[in-house]
Amino acid sequence: MSYINENFLKLQENYLFSNISKKVDKYKKENPKKEIINLGIGDVTRPIIPECIKAMNKAINEMADEDTFKGYGPEQGYEFLRKAIVENDYKNRNIDIELDEIFISDGAKCDCGNILDIFSANNTIAITNPVYPVYIDTNVMTGGAGEYDSVTKTYKNIKYLKMIEENNFIPEIPKEKIDLIYLCFPNNPTGAVLNKKELKKWIQYAKKNNSIIFFDSAYEAFITEDDIPHSIYEIEGAKEVAIEFKSFSKTAGFTGLRCAYIVIPKELKGVTIKGEKISINKLWNRRVCTKFNGVSYIIQKAAEAIYTSQGKKQIQENINYYLENAHIIKEGLQNLGFKVYGGTNSPYIWLKVPENKTSWEFFDLLLEKLNIVGTPGSGFGINGEGYFRLTGFGTRDKTEEAMNRFNKYFYKK
Amino acid sequence: MSYINENFLKLQENYLFSNISKKVDKYKKENPKKEIINLGIGDVTRPIIPECIKAMNKAINEMADEDTFKGYGPEQGYEFLRKAIVENDYKNRNIDIELDEIFISDGAKCDCGNILDIFSANNTIAITNPVYPVYIDTNVMTGGAGEYDSVTKTYKNIKYLKMIEENNFIPEIPKEKIDLIYLCFPNNPTGAVLNKKELKKWIQYAKKNNSIIFFDSAYEAFITEDDIPHSIYEIEGAKEVAIEFKSFSKTAGFTGLRCAYIVIPKELKGVTIKGEKISINKLWNRRVCTKFNGVSYIIQKAAEAIYTSQGKKQIQENINYYLENAHIIKEGLQNLGFKVYGGTNSPYIWLKVPENKTSWEFFDLLLEKLNIVGTPGSGFGINGEGYFRLTGFGTRDKTEEAMNRFNKYFYKK
Repeated sequence: MSYINENFLKLQENYLFSNISKKVDKYKKENPKKEIINLGIGDVTRPIIPECIKAMNKAINEMADEDTFKGYGPEQGYEFLRKAIVENDYKNRNIDIELDEIFISDGAKCDCGNILDIFSANNTIAITNPVYPVYIDTNVMTGGAGEYDSVTKTYKNIKYLKMIEENNFIPEIPKEKIDLIYLCFPNNPTGAVLNKKELKKWIQYAKKNNSIIFFDSAYEAFITEDDIPHSIYEIEGAKEVAIEFKSFSKTAGFTGLRCAYIVIPKELKGVTIKGEKISINKLWNRRVCTKFNGVSYIIQKAAEAIYTSQGKKQIQENINYYLENAHIIKEGLQNLGFKVYGGTNSPYIWLKVPENKTSWEFFDLLLEKLNIVGTPGSGFGINGEGYFRLTGFGTRDKTEEAMNRFNKYFYKK
Repeated sequence: MSYINENFLKLQENYLFSNISKKVDKYKKENPKKEIINLGIGDVTRPIIPECIKAMNKAINEMADEDTFKGYGPEQGYEFLRKAIVENDYKNRNIDIELDEIFISDGAKCDCGNILDIFSANNTIAITNPVYPVYIDTNVMTGGAGEYDSVTKTYKNIKYLKMIEENNFIPEIPKEKIDLIYLCFPNNPTGAVLNKKELKKWIQYAKKNNSIIFFDSAYEAFITEDDIPHSIYEIEGAKEVAIEFKSFSKTAGFTGLRCAYIVIPKELKGVTIKGEKISINKLWNRRVCTKFNGVSYIIQKAAEAIYTSQGKKQIQENINYYLENAHIIKEGLQNLGFKVYGGTNSPYIWLKVPENKTSWEFFDLLLEKLNIVGTPGSGFGINGEGYFRLTGFGTRDKTEEAMNRFNKYFYKK
């Protein structure tokens, strides 16, 4: 008999995006003439910048010629890209990261899931809520999340760190010892950030408890305020307790190209049951060499091009475009009296649903009355109920048109 | 405390390729004027075919334009590529495979490792030997391989299926029940193949024992003989017992582009401890959607181009080039009295080391006397001792020059 990993049977179906599609499709069918605007989109819409296009065209020419053809590359990623990352994302911020502390991958989603390969499933886990569902589901798959409680809608071995209006979307430091902690800032879906002082508390907690922080900073490029760290390693001592997950998906619109990286400092150690300290960097390197064969040369060349002076300028233009969309949405909603969060250091707007409606009731209202699609907060976890996510990833004209509709509908009331 | 996965500590260091580099580097330093020919290479050397280059250039242009830009694609791969695979790799061979039985990935190495996510680590495992080390190491990581015995140099929970001269490199069907079986044919490193009759025995065994076969056919494109199946699904009943792993790496020189796929028929079921049957296809789909975000659009477009009539012709020219190299090596060695295997349906030549030398002694002899680098068979496992791997992946002139050196050295003797 071929036995399956039964932890997979504990996974809950996530109907969020399929329910959204179903509702939108039904509405469109019944109202074929209505023009629907999608502000629920979590994907980028701006094309790849010219500097990356140029780099890819060059790389393709190399692949076409036997003198410059590239076969297998280093599993950890080409040095040219790791050097560019070290210089631009770290050295420029006075952070010392070495080449062999960087591992290039095909996406932060993959990294977030795969990292659990090198850890025991017996660690205690803390995950913010609302949350990107991958953190939870990958822990369910390893067995680390434990059993599902259908009453509380939680997994027994996961400590859920509430991010709600009442705590200003800043998760509280746990009182108990937690081994692995997921932090995503700027946060998806709330758009919340941690300033240096807040993040420092987590580093201190992790040092005291020998915890490891998985710091997902996929939205780092959207930070606009001074006191918000762009890397967790800006905080002293973070190298001993944190793995940083970064992605080119939102920074440079690579959602369809696929490239990301993680940083695992050599100072970072895990332990065996007997208490022996083991280098996490070495474990991960072994994992990468055994189960991965590197990212496409062409895509790594595109990623390198982001760090040229032209590349930096061009991606910043796109980031500014999305941030301006977010600003338009945020300001528009505030003027109408909505309670709105995020949108300043993030493409995400997290709004409090008015009149004690549920997230899905508000979804229906927006769809039917304004012909606008957003994402119900409850889809991101129990603490998302009563909230709603809009994003700045649309086009400018659609975003403006959406706000006109908001004005017409909500101003009148 | 953050506990590590202690199974990683049971991994044995594989010094094969680093030892080869060290020896070659030392020799080069001491003999700077000698021209070394590498016939140990497992990577392709021919550039990407024009048809794929054209497709990638077109895809890049799409990515540069906001009207045609592609963000996140389907985790399972774009339909255009899955359709091309279904039509060309299966329907053309009278095999019915549906679109949602195909999953596009960034490499067969990744797939071979990741597939274990959905299985219990308590399955019994059989792996041919000599072997591609990834099958073993990924099972060590999950704990499925059990403890390492440093005397026998084997893991306790792995059944090693001998592939040696005495059994014509055809592994024997196990007498005991095995749950998961790794078969790679055409085989790396021996170049051996299973004909339909032999493969049928495995299907029958798997059906009888409710086993699942992981069929790695990365070298399928090199098959030249009629009776050798190109897909395990050519054998009746295989859909109920086999997952097929395929790769564009060797077929179309994609080692640096990264694209592969696996086939999981819906008939294939695993079981829970209680005996409930579970669809492996559904489990894998969930795994893919949770831990993967699809292959780069550009690379999938390149893969699709392999299936055009021009693309087929162009990749066949490269395959023929490598096969002709293999033929030159095989014939040359046979004329000198070597016992030589593989090389007919495979780019790999597996030769019996003469005069009872060890694999490494023969390596030293070739390096020092002929200035040729190959791969010692013992690096692929205990049953590789006394054998040696040469490959057809070099250039034609180097391959011919290498054979001249063989002739000069071994003919004289």
